[in-house]
Order: sequence, then structure tokens, then C-alpha cells
Amino acid sequence: MTLTPELTTQLTAWRRDFHRFAEPGWTEFRTTSAIIAVLRDLGWDTVYGPELHDAEARLGVPDAEVLAGERERAVAQGADPELVAAMGDGFTGVLGVLETGRPGPVVCFRFDIDSNDLVELADDSHRPHAEGFASVNDGAMHGCGHDGHAAIGLGLATTLARVREELTGTVKIIFQPAEEGVRGAHSIVAAGWFDDVDLFVATHLKSDDGKGNVLTGSDGYLASTKLDVTFTGLGAHAGGDPEKGKNALLAAASATVNLHAIPRHSEGASRINVGTFHAGEGRNVVPKAASLRLETRGETSSINSYVEERAREVIVGAARMYDVDACVTVVGKADQESPSPELLPYVRACFEGVDGVAEIRDTGGLGGSEDATAMMKRVKECGGLATYVQIGMDTSWGHHTERFDVDEDMLALGVEAETTIALGAGRFLDGVGRR
Amino acid sequence: MTLTPELTTQLTAWRRDFHRFAEPGWTEFRTTSAIIAVLRDLGWDTVYGPELHDAEARLGVPDAEVLAGERERAVAQGADPELVAAMGDGFTGVLGVLETGRPGPVVCFRFDIDSNDLVELADDSHRPHAEGFASVNDGAMHGCGHDGHAAIGLGLATTLARVREELTGTVKIIFQPAEEGVRGAHSIVAAGWFDDVDLFVATHLKSDDGKGNVLTGSDGYLASTKLDVTFTGLGAHAGGDPEKGKNALLAAASATVNLHAIPRHSEGASRINVGTFHAGEGRNVVPKAASLRLETRGETSSINSYVEERAREVIVGAARMYDVDACVTVVGKADQESPSPELLPYVRACFEGVDGVAEIRDTGGLGGSEDATAMMKRVKECGGLATYVQIGMDTSWGHHTERFDVDEDMLALGVEAETTIALGAGRFLDGVGRR
Amino acid sequence: MTLTPELTTQLTAWRRDFHRFAEPGWTEFRTTSAIIAVLRDLGWDTVYGPELHDAEARLGVPDAEVLAGERERAVAQGADPELVAAMGDGFTGVLGVLETGRPGPVVCFRFDIDSNDLVELADDSHRPHAEGFASVNDGAMHGCGHDGHAAIGLGLATTLARVREELTGTVKIIFQPAEEGVRGAHSIVAAGWFDDVDLFVATHLKSDDGKGNVLTGSDGYLASTKLDVTFTGLGAHAGGDPEKGKNALLAAASATVNLHAIPRHSEGASRINVGTFHAGEGRNVVPKAASLRLETRGETSSINSYVEERAREVIVGAARMYDVDACVTVVGKADQESPSPELLPYVRACFEGVDGVAEIRDTGGLGGSEDATAMMKRVKECGGLATYVQIGMDTSWGHHTERFDVDEDMLALGVEAETTIALGAGRFLDGVGRR
Amino acid sequence: MTLTPELTTQLTAWRRDFHRFAEPGWTEFRTTSAIIAVLRDLGWDTVYGPELHDAEARLGVPDAEVLAGERERAVAQGADPELVAAMGDGFTGVLGVLETGRPGPVVCFRFDIDSNDLVELADDSHRPHAEGFASVNDGAMHGCGHDGHAAIGLGLATTLARVREELTGTVKIIFQPAEEGVRGAHSIVAAGWFDDVDLFVATHLKSDDGKGNVLTGSDGYLASTKLDVTFTGLGAHAGGDPEKGKNALLAAASATVNLHAIPRHSEGASRINVGTFHAGEGRNVVPKAASLRLETRGETSSINSYVEERAREVIVGAARMYDVDACVTVVGKADQESPSPELLPYVRACFEGVDGVAEIRDTGGLGGSEDATAMMKRVKECGGLATYVQIGMDTSWGHHTERFDVDEDMLALGVEAETTIALGAGRFLDGVGRR
Repeated sequence: MTLTPELTTQLTAWRRDFHRFAEPGWTEFRTTSAIIAVLRDLGWDTVYGPELHDAEARLGVPDAEVLAGERERAVAQGADPELVAAMGDGFTGVLGVLETGRPGPVVCFRFDIDSNDLVELADDSHRPHAEGFASVNDGAMHGCGHDGHAAIGLGLATTLARVREELTGTVKIIFQPAEEGVRGAHSIVAAGWFDDVDLFVATHLKSDDGKGNVLTGSDGYLASTKLDVTFTGLGAHAGGDPEKGKNALLAAASATVNLHAIPRHSEGASRINVGTFHAGEGRNVVPKAASLRLETRGETSSINSYVEERAREVIVGAARMYDVDACVTVVGKADQESPSPELLPYVRACFEGVDGVAEIRDTGGLGGSEDATAMMKRVKECGGLATYVQIGMDTSWGHHTERFDVDEDMLALGVEAETTIALGAGRFLDGVGRR
Repeated sequence: MTLTPELTTQLTAWRRDFHRFAEPGWTEFRTTSAIIAVLRDLGWDTVYGPELHDAEARLGVPDAEVLAGERERAVAQGADPELVAAMGDGFTGVLGVLETGRPGPVVCFRFDIDSNDLVELADDSHRPHAEGFASVNDGAMHGCGHDGHAAIGLGLATTLARVREELTGTVKIIFQPAEEGVRGAHSIVAAGWFDDVDLFVATHLKSDDGKGNVLTGSDGYLASTKLDVTFTGLGAHAGGDPEKGKNALLAAASATVNLHAIPRHSEGASRINVGTFHAGEGRNVVPKAASLRLETRGETSSINSYVEERAREVIVGAARMYDVDACVTVVGKADQESPSPELLPYVRACFEGVDGVAEIRDTGGLGGSEDATAMMKRVKECGGLATYVQIGMDTSWGHHTERFDVDEDMLALGVEAETTIALGAGRFLDGVGRR
Repeated sequence: MTLTPELTTQLTAWRRDFHRFAEPGWTEFRTTSAIIAVLRDLGWDTVYGPELHDAEARLGVPDAEVLAGERERAVAQGADPELVAAMGDGFTGVLGVLETGRPGPVVCFRFDIDSNDLVELADDSHRPHAEGFASVNDGAMHGCGHDGHAAIGLGLATTLARVREELTGTVKIIFQPAEEGVRGAHSIVAAGWFDDVDLFVATHLKSDDGKGNVLTGSDGYLASTKLDVTFTGLGAHAGGDPEKGKNALLAAASATVNLHAIPRHSEGASRINVGTFHAGEGRNVVPKAASLRLETRGETSSINSYVEERAREVIVGAARMYDVDACVTVVGKADQESPSPELLPYVRACFEGVDGVAEIRDTGGLGGSEDATAMMKRVKECGGLATYVQIGMDTSWGHHTERFDVDEDMLALGVEAETTIALGAGRFLDGVGRR
Repeated sequence: MTLTPELTTQLTAWRRDFHRFAEPGWTEFRTTSAIIAVLRDLGWDTVYGPELHDAEARLGVPDAEVLAGERERAVAQGADPELVAAMGDGFTGVLGVLETGRPGPVVCFRFDIDSNDLVELADDSHRPHAEGFASVNDGAMHGCGHDGHAAIGLGLATTLARVREELTGTVKIIFQPAEEGVRGAHSIVAAGWFDDVDLFVATHLKSDDGKGNVLTGSDGYLASTKLDVTFTGLGAHAGGDPEKGKNALLAAASATVNLHAIPRHSEGASRINVGTFHAGEGRNVVPKAASLRLETRGETSSINSYVEERAREVIVGAARMYDVDACVTVVGKADQESPSPELLPYVRACFEGVDGVAEIRDTGGLGGSEDATAMMKRVKECGGLATYVQIGMDTSWGHHTERFDVDEDMLALGVEAETTIALGAGRFLDGVGRR
């Protein structure tokens, strides 16, 4: 179906609003509040706050002080105070549910909504700055297109509300928080919201990939674990009492070099990166504290587990070397998960003929990590089909850079194709005998 | 001479005022302003601002933005705006000069005035907090007694003004900025203010050393160099493009471990400490920047030079390993310097009999580093005698800790003994044939 | 064609003779001498000694003293002294040439002949020991089946001599030295012996791969570079003069850890291994010398080059760190090279129906490295077709282990199939228009 | 007393004989045998073999195979086969005892007799080579003067036998094995031979120290521990199975760098040296074994203990990092021990006036380590007096170098002064009330 000009315009407006008020993972109070308002207007049911999450399963939630500050800011920037209060200590995100009352499958679409820790480029060569919708929130910027994803999700909610009578079964749209750091999917999965899904599609805009090129079944996401490590030793005057210190900085430095020396794996790609290192109080004090933020990855979940296990040994060993304590916390986790092959021809068919779609491929693209894989995994475990769609943009900047921008033409394309997916899902699933 | 009760009371008042408005090195705008006001009232000449320093020789000056903020704060906390403006970009400190007009030696006393980077203990067990004179400046605290040193200096200016007619030659009192990090002495020495000094005494209060115990010639200060190092590489996505990055964090980690592995020296004690390490932008990005703050030390200046030279090689080598750039900046420097042996008996005699003085020793105490050694070195090069006096306090906390406090009884003791030193200097120097 | 019982028996006898007198790379004096004798008897021309190699292009040749000792041993173990002398300082290996005088293609087969640095298991569970043909040469053992390869080569020379009248063009059989360490192929290629080859087949027996399973186009060999590194510093008494030393051992240790920390490559598998480390003269002496033997690998030649270049930087940087010299020598090199796809069906057809052949596959098997790739590369550059055949054995030990043994049933199988390859080569090449 | 020309000539002959047949620690079979023969001829009692040592307390004894080879060589070089057999598995060294039968003190002199692991310079600029007494034993050379010490000991045995009637009490001369590596003293001390000693003098020739300069109480020997470390992991093919290995070489390399990074100690000099590092089997195998020989030192025994304890933690931590096992063995140990101050004037008096003695000093000389300190410690614990005498030589080579040579003029000097020490010991000890 083709969108109305009004909806096309609205997609860009939504995306720019989210861009302007960028909110990092677990603090998407204003973003969630705005999405809930639209969904309610359209007649969708909404699930949010602690009901949406298994509280124990959340990963990498900021501390209470940060959350309180972000709640205040959200309200100051127009969020509904009641909704913000309901989201409490970081229970952000929302699940929209459209029950048709007619028998049929449960179809679910996923869009992530959090921003990145980036300082947006303040230069007129960068459209958000030139046209006045650059992020107003210090150090937060949509540098991975989640503002566009949220807009597509709302567009899809709009079109599906309009064709409600043609739908069967149930449609769910999950607006997921905290994808950056692969933190936000797990607690929603753990709360059971994917157990009944028959067909699942996650969506991502992709920079530098050719305008309108579509990948129907991205399978190259690496399994990954995100670890925070703190080393705790004992300070001492470096000139007067060097032997009395227990040097946490040296333990962390030694751990870092040896972490990167973890052997490759014969069965496929592995990665390790110590991304940040902060240690020490003063130049002349034996450093008593050091903290690392690191990540492991693997082409399969088992390769990632291998790297993670080796990393833990290296950390414990380095701490032992310097007689300091080490504390390791998992703050994010993604599995590798492949799309259901049976689903790909159907998705391909739904994208074919949509205005703006160029080449369609089925699989490919080794690279980052994604926690939508946790949703895909659960859907497949429960007998459903799942895939991950990437929509290419003809842009020249990388993801996670200060000059990332969305090709807004792609928003409508996504809404149209995925509306088609929803409309035909029942017939397709019957056809392949999967319901 | 015994002090008047008023002066004794005033010493404590001065010290507490400086404590309350603690200012770190090169930002002692309010402290300097207050000292200049007292010196002027007492009839001393004052040298300050760019005249006091050889601008090229200053080490470790904060950047212009920090200085501007600190100047504003100083004015808000009562500093004379004209004086603050005259000190410009960190030309803090003041030299008081008392010309008697009579022939005689140039006698010089040195007191340092800067605070430490510490968060003061907010607990009633800590007297400054309980009695309301704890530092009001965030992250700045007098944790090494320089507030007391400044008070002794003003007390000495007061007594010497009173006995002006009994003095001969010239008396100088240097209120030195930026002793922490051994940064502030060099530019004053380079400006020539110590070339004509015949007798030089630096003074330091010492915690945990026995109330009233005096060391007349502290000779255990280690030569030291303070280095800031930045490594600059190239960022890249750690999952997607690990080989494209140039990892500054790994270079810094490897440098750190190998810096600590620099061999000992057969001729005496050496030290090295990488005190702080900050690197990386995000967990999933190959880190493009890392910075270290480190220091080397040696029991002699040549041992320190050995460690510094080896350290520079390690840093360059580590950068080469990871194909990143390294930039090394000297931000502080102290030589080892011994007191003039001929001077010690005279100093001992001046302390003997002063109320509150307990045991007097002549030398000892290996430990930290001091840039007063640069002044001592210059004085001795120019034919003068120099020493470094430590006055012990019966306190149970270490220097550079959040609960450091001064035993205020020691302030009067220092003023009395050093007044005697000034009064008798001419006769003493004649006696040993040193003028 | 089926072999005579006599030849089958002879294959085993040759193999066991080579096994018993195992000779490592560039010292295959007795082995080469024995092969030349057989070839001459069969009427083949032989090329050996300096004529076979481009002397400048040889890699990893042992020093003159070692070679002299091995020549003596070879003669003592029955080698022809004249031939041994002709091979001089390690110009081992021999190329057999059969000119038919009739027009036709140049077909070339390659068999490697060197042994491994292993101590053979002296246990009756190990057949070579139980049946009396275990290696009599200390520290040398055929642990990779090259004894079997050489036997297949001689078997092929025998059968082809018998069917000489049915052949066209020229057949070459190269008995290559020094495959271990990927050292021996380059100088033979550089001497031009592969420039005129139209069809090239290298052969390898493969342990643990299923009896009689054949791989017609092994493409999984990793590109690799073998490097020897020496660090040279300065000794000193570790107690009395620690600062006077330049510590080569520490430079090598630091290099080693950082070599293993070279980042993974996004385009495929990479490897690095510091396999041996020898350093230091005595416990109480700062070590003045250290030597490493290491290798890099890559799924493509360009990935291997990336690792090698990074490794060289790490080595130079580590040397700089400790103010020592580093010297890096390439002692082996293998490219990645794929088989010619057009050739695989023909090879498959020649193996099909041969007695003992089980499953036939075309490609696969990521793993070690091979310098036959240099021959394949040259043949392809000059317009020929090339492949690498693996013949599986049902054995339970790994290559390069002390209990490796050859399944001697596979020798005849190889001879039969490759005789067929030679006989049909002209027709096949004409058919695909490749001559 | 002045020596006869015959004895002076004999001293040189003994020294050159020992030099020629140099034997490393615990293999001094021929040297001990020769000494026993002389002592017996002179009428001294001798204690040797297992009786001399507490077997459990021996450190760093070579393995049985090495010992067997060395015993054979000793016999081939003229040792008494019966004595060699009696020394068994390395129970070398001998204690000569001269009982006068008259009341008096127990006076003990110590001379060490083992050689170093050095290849002697084969050059006519090196006297032992030019004059034909260079070591004939490969890799063994007297590079620390123990050949001269043994000669002085035999000279002293000769003179004391001559003046036997003037002596009182008991004289012991211990010819100690295995001083290199500070291994040999402990088991003799543990066997009780020093419990009754009233006056103890150890003797050492010192290169580069001024001809005839004598140090009566060397107190600069550092406490030291000699450690052998083996890391044991798991091999794997570095190309095919990198993740299956447990890399002992990497653990050892990481341990090495971090061992050298153990912090300095505020109370005095410390040292650490990883002197040798051997690891790995082949270039393309993940190394399963690594061994280090290292030593720690400290200006005091407690500083050495600090370094040793930290070193053990580093080793355990590095093993943990790489999931390998580490095994640490103490193979040598020396305490720091000061001479008895009361003894120094007496020793000085005995050297004064001896022909060839130049300057006499009492203390000094930080540097190596000595296990005679274990004897000094035991003597002092049991109420005796002990010192360590150094006799300077005007030579230009360092100890432990390939061109070390003894100034043979110093041999007579030592014998004369120590004969005087023995003769006057009773009177001296009575005088200071120490018996």
C-alpha cells in the first residue's frame, strides 16, 4: 500500500522530534511517553513500565541518580509526568498490541528507540544542525538511526490501525529500549511477551549500503558479551611507600594487553575490545582503583562464550598478580541467531515492488551485535519464524559517528513493506504449515 | 622573641581563611591577593604577576578556560579584582621584600601556598568541618599544610616589620605557587630572584613526626620529573573493522607495564609511578586516545634522569608497537639538593629554646619531592647557604589525605625561630666568612 | 590401472626405508640420493643440486656445520657420496623428467620428502617401532607422511615408465625438499621449472579423514610467513649493575605478549604464534640475547601480510622500549592459493572407480599452510591448471605427533589414480581448450 | 709469618690445577678429591660425603644423570675413584679439622671451590690460555676466583700444620661447594658444623679493587633467592586449533614483564632478574612448556622476602591468566648478614704489615650475594664472631667474564694474614670476653 502524503510528512516529523530529544538506553522517558500517546490515539493497547520487563533480567541499567535526572529532563521536555513516573527506575519502552478479535497469527515487529553516547556535529554540513533538529541533550545523539526506527514503528501502527478490519489475529509492535550495549531485549523476552509470536520481524536502517537495497535476513550479527570490570587495590605514596600499595592500574593494564592476546578460534571469527580504561587518583599515588569497559564477540554464541571465559580467567589472573580484587559485571549480552530460511521468500515478496526498493538480498553482513537476536531466538524456540531486515541508505557516514543522519525517504518504504507483511502473514503461515 | 597573643590568634585566623578558600597550583588568585594586602599594610614591597616569573619556564599551568573560571571564583570570594587581573593567566604567588637600607645579607624565606586535589572529609571528627572552615571549593583542599606555611610567612612578615630597625641588608619572603606537582619554583628561579640570596630557608610542617620535633636540614627529597603522556591513534568499530584501528589504549597499557619494569639503579633509590590512566570513548570502539600522568624519581638527579630517559624510550617504543603517536610533556621537575652543612648549627641554635620545640635533628627523611630544591640549588650556585626545615606535628593522618589538619600550635613556633634566624643572619654569615 | 603385487610391495618398502632414515628439510641427502637412483634405473632424466634451485630464493637453510654433519650421516647410511657432494650446502630434492618426444602437455606431480623435528615413539603400540623401521636419526621422524608421498612418487615414476609409449608431451615429478616450515618450494619455482607446466597436481596423505576419502581440490591452506627474530642487548650483573644492561629477554617477552594482541581482521581468519623463545645466559646476568621463532597466517595472502606487517612493528617497538636491536629474518613463506575449478571434475573422474577410494569431495579443510601453493600460483600465472589432492586415512593420530603412521594401503591408490591423470591429461586439456 | 718460596710456588700450582679442571657446583668431585689428598698428607682430619651435609637442605643439585657424567669425568681427570664414589650424588666439598688437643677456641675459615658456567676465552691475551692452564672442561671456567680461594685454603692448611704446636683449640677449614647460585652453604650449616665455631672468616678475591687493598668486613652482600619456575600447559596446532592450546610461553612472557614491574621498596635496594627463558617446541605449535630461572634480591633479608613473595604472586597470577600450571622451586638462597664489629680491628691488625697489603678498609661494597652469610648467621646465633674478608686485585676484568684471571701474588698474602688470625685467635677472643 502507498502512504498518504500526510503520513509521509508525519514520519519525518516524528523522526526529527526523537532526534532532537535523544535519550540513551533505559532513559527513553520522553520518547516512550510520546510513542504511548500516539499508540493510544490510534486505538492500540499499550504495555509499559514494570509490566513490560522481568526486573531481574535487565542489564546495564544506570544508577538511580542518573535516572532521576533524566526523568526530570524528560518532563521538562514535554513528557507526560504520570507516564514518566510509571516508568520508574528505567522501565522504559512500550509494547503496542492490536487485537483483531479474529482468529489468526501473532505477528510482531520490533523497533529500538535509544540514542548513542555521542556529541553531535555542530556544523551546517550536518543536516540536523542546519535544519534545527540536532540533539539538545548533551552527549546524547541518535547516531544509529533508532529515531528513524521509532518513526517507522509509529507509521506502521498508523497504517495497521487503518486496515484493522483486514487483519486477523494479533499484531504487536515492540518499541525496545537500550539496544545500544545489547541490554534492553532480555528483560522483555524474560517477561514472556514473545512466547506466543508466530512471525517476527526486526528492522534496521543501514548506512553506506546503497539506497533502497534490502537485506531480508541479516545473519551476520556476532554474539557478544559486554563486561564492566573494576579492580580495587590499595593506595600509597608512590615516592615514600611504593611497596605498600596494591596497584589496580597495573593489574588493569596487564589484563588489557593479555585480554587482547586471547587466541583466535578455529571455528570462526572472534573479537575482544577493551574500549575504555580509567584509573588512578593522582600522579604520585599508587593507584587503588581502575575500571575497564570491554566486550567479547564471536561468530557463534559458543565462540563468544569461549572468549568470555578466557577473558574472565585473564582478569582474575591479573588481579592475582597485583594482589588486588577484581569484580566483573555483565552489562549487555547478545546471541548469534540466524533468520528462519522459510520466512525470507515471503519478506522478499513483500518488499518487491515497493516504491524505492532497489536490490533485495537474503543474507550477509558480518559485523556488530544485536539483542533482537534474543527475541528471534525465543520466537524460534516457541515454534515461530523470525528474521531481521536491513534497509540500505545511500549515505557516506558510518554508524556511531557524529555526522550520522537518516535518509528519510526510507521511512515510508519500511512502513509500506511491513504493512504488507502484516496483512499477508496469516495466509503465508498457513501456506507453510507453521500455525 | 615571643609573639603577642594577638599575632598568635591572627596566625590561626590566616591559616583558616586560606584553608577555607583552598586554591590549587597556578590558581592561588584569592590567596595571593590576600597575602599582598597584608604585606602592603606592613610596609613590605611586593613583586607579583608576570614580573615574578620567567613565563617560558613555568611548568604544568592549567589551560586558559580553567584559569578564567578560577579568577572569577577568586573575585567572588573576596579577592581584589585589580590584583587578580594583574596575575593574568596564572602568574600567581608573591615575593615580599623588606629593604633595610643598611648593609647586610640578603636573607630569604620560602612558603608555598597552593592546595591539593582532594575532597575534604565532611565529618565532625575533622576539625575544619566541625569548626566551619572546611574548604568551600569543590575538589580543592589544603591537605599538605600550605595554608599553615602561608600563615607562618605572614607572621614572619609581621614580626620582621616590627623589628625592622634591628635588621640589616634585605629580607625576602617568597610565597610560592604550585608546589604540588613541583611546578612553581622554576620560573621564579629563572627570573633571577634567588641570585643574590645569601641565606635561604624553606619551611614545611610535617605530620606524624612528633610535636615540636625539628629537622634543620631535610635532605631526603628525591629528584623527580612529572610527565604527561598522550597517545593518539585511530578509532574503528571493534566488531566490524578491528584491523582498521590504531589502538592508543593498548599502547598506553603496554607502556605502563613496561615503565614499571625499568631496571633499578645500582647507585641508589629510584621510583616510577603511572598515577592515572584515561583512555577510550566507548566499549565497542577501538580506542583512539589515551593519556597517562606519571612521575619518575631518583635519590640523585642523575638517577632520576636515568629513569626519565628510559621512560621516554619505553613510551616511544610502545607507540611504535601500535603505530600510534606519543606526545610527552614535562609538567613538573624537582632536583635532589642537600642543605648546606655550615648552616645547620646556626638554624639549630635559632630553634633551641623556642617554646614548644622538642627534639632537633639535622638530616634525614627519604620520601617525596620538593621544588624548593631548585631555589636551594640556585642559592648555592651563587655562593649562598640554603636549607630546608621541617617542623613536626603530633598528628595521626598522612599528608595528602582527606583528613589532614594542621597543629596550629606550630605556627607561632615557626615564626619565632625564623625571626631569630633573620635577626642573626648577618652576624652568622660574617662568622663563617660567607659574605 | 591396477598395480602389480611387486610394485605394491615395493611401495611399502620404499616408504619404510625413507621412514627409517628420516631427514629434515634441506638435509634430505640420503633420501634424494635413493630417489635419483630409482629414477635413473627407470630411465627418467633427473635435475638436482644447484641446477634445481635459485640459490638466492632458498629460505630457512640450516648453517654449514649442520649440513656437513648431515652429509656425513647420509653417506654413512648408504647415500651415493658423489650425489651427496653434488647437493652441496643443502641443494636437496630432485626433479624427474620423462620426455615422450611426442607433442603434448607438460604434466607435473609434486611429492615432498622431508621429515619433522620429532622424537618417534619407542613403544610397540607404534608400528614403525614394533616392526623395526622407526627412525634411527635422533630428533628426526616422518610425522607428516612425506615418506609415503615419496613412495607414491616413485610408484608413479615406475608405472609411467611402463606406459611410456601411451603418454604424450612431458611428465615431471618433483620430489620437493623442506616443505616443513614452507621453505622448499620457492627456490625451485624461482628457477623456472614450473613455467611450462600445463597441469599440476600436489598430493598429501591426510590422517583422521576416513579411509579412502579423497579431496580433489584442497583450498583451505592459510597463507603464512615464518619469521626468526633475534634481540641483541647488553649483559650486566643483575645485582651489581642492573641499570647498565640492555635487556633482550624483556624486549622479547614484551614483544611476545603484544604480538599475540595484534587485532583480528574483519575479512577472515588470522593467526599468530610465537612458537619458541630462548633467552639469557645465566640467572644473575641481565640477558643480552633472545631469539623467537614465530609465524603469522591469514585466510588470504593479504590478511597474512597485514599480520606480518603489524608483527614487524611490534618487534621494532619492543626493541626500542628496551634499547636493544632486533633482527627479523623470513625463513618460510606460503601463499593462499585455490585449485583451478575446471580441473576438479577431471581429477574426480580419475579417482572414481580406483580400488579403495571411498567418498570424493571437491573443496574444504581450513588449517595449516603449504608451500605447494607457490607452485600452484606459478602454474596458474603461466596459464596452466593446478590442484592439491588429499587422500584420507582412517588413523587416529594427528599429524606432527610422535605416533603418526601411514596407512600403507593408500599408497597404491594414489599411484593408480595419478597414473590415470597423466595418461588422460592431453585429451582433457584439449577438451577444455587449455593448451 | 712469611711463606717459604716452595709454598708460594705451590699456591700457584694448586690454583692452576683447579683452574684447568674447573667443576661447577655440586660436581667438584676431582677438586674435592685433590683437596682431601693434600689435607690427609698434612695430617688434617677430613669430613666429606653425606656426613658433611644435611641431605634435605641441599639446594639446586643437578640431576642424577649429570652427576654420573661428572663423576666419570672426574675419575678420568685423575680423581681418586673411591673418594668420588663416597661423594655419591653431589655430596662434594670437604671440611678439614685440626684438633690441637689443647683448650682453646674453634676457629673456622671458609673457601669456596666451584666454577662458573662460562666458556673461557681462547686467546693469548688471556694468561690461562697462553700458559696452558685454561679450563679443559666445556662450559666450565673459574671466573670468580674460587680456584684461588681453594689454593689459599690449602696454603693455610699447610702453614697451620707447620705451626700446629703454637695453636690452641680447634681449627676448621671448610672447602665449600656450589657457592655460585648460593646453594652450597645451607646443608653444611644444617648439619651442625658451625654450631661450635667461635671465630669465622670467609675470604674472597676481588677484581678491579686495587692491588692489595683489603676489606675486613664486607657487609654489602644482598639477600637473595634463586627460583626455578616451570609453566606447563597444553600443546595444539597453532594454525588449526589455536583455541585448544594452553600457552605456557605466553604465561611466562607475561609473568616476566610483570615480575620486573614489582614495586621498589622504601627501605632499601631491591632487585629482580629473569635471567633465562626457554619455551616452546616448534614454530607452529602452541607452546606447552616454559621455564624461567630468576632471582630476587634485597638490601635486607626482609626486602628480599618482599620481592620473593610478590614474585610468587605474579607467577601464580600469570599461570591463572593462561590456564596453565606453575611450579616454583627454590634452588638457592642467601641472607644479608653483617660482620661482627668487634672482630674487625683484630682482622685489620692481622693484615697490617703483611707484605703486599695496601689500604685496609672495614666495610662497604653493595653488590652480589653470598651464601657464606648463612655460615656467618649461624656462628653469630651461637655466640661466635664472624666476618667476610675481601682481598683486592689490580685487574681490569669483571667477575663472571670469560677473561677473568687471578692475581696470583694475592694468594700468599691471604695465607699469611689468616695464619696470623688463627694463631692469635685465642688471645683475642679472651681479650674481648667472647669465649
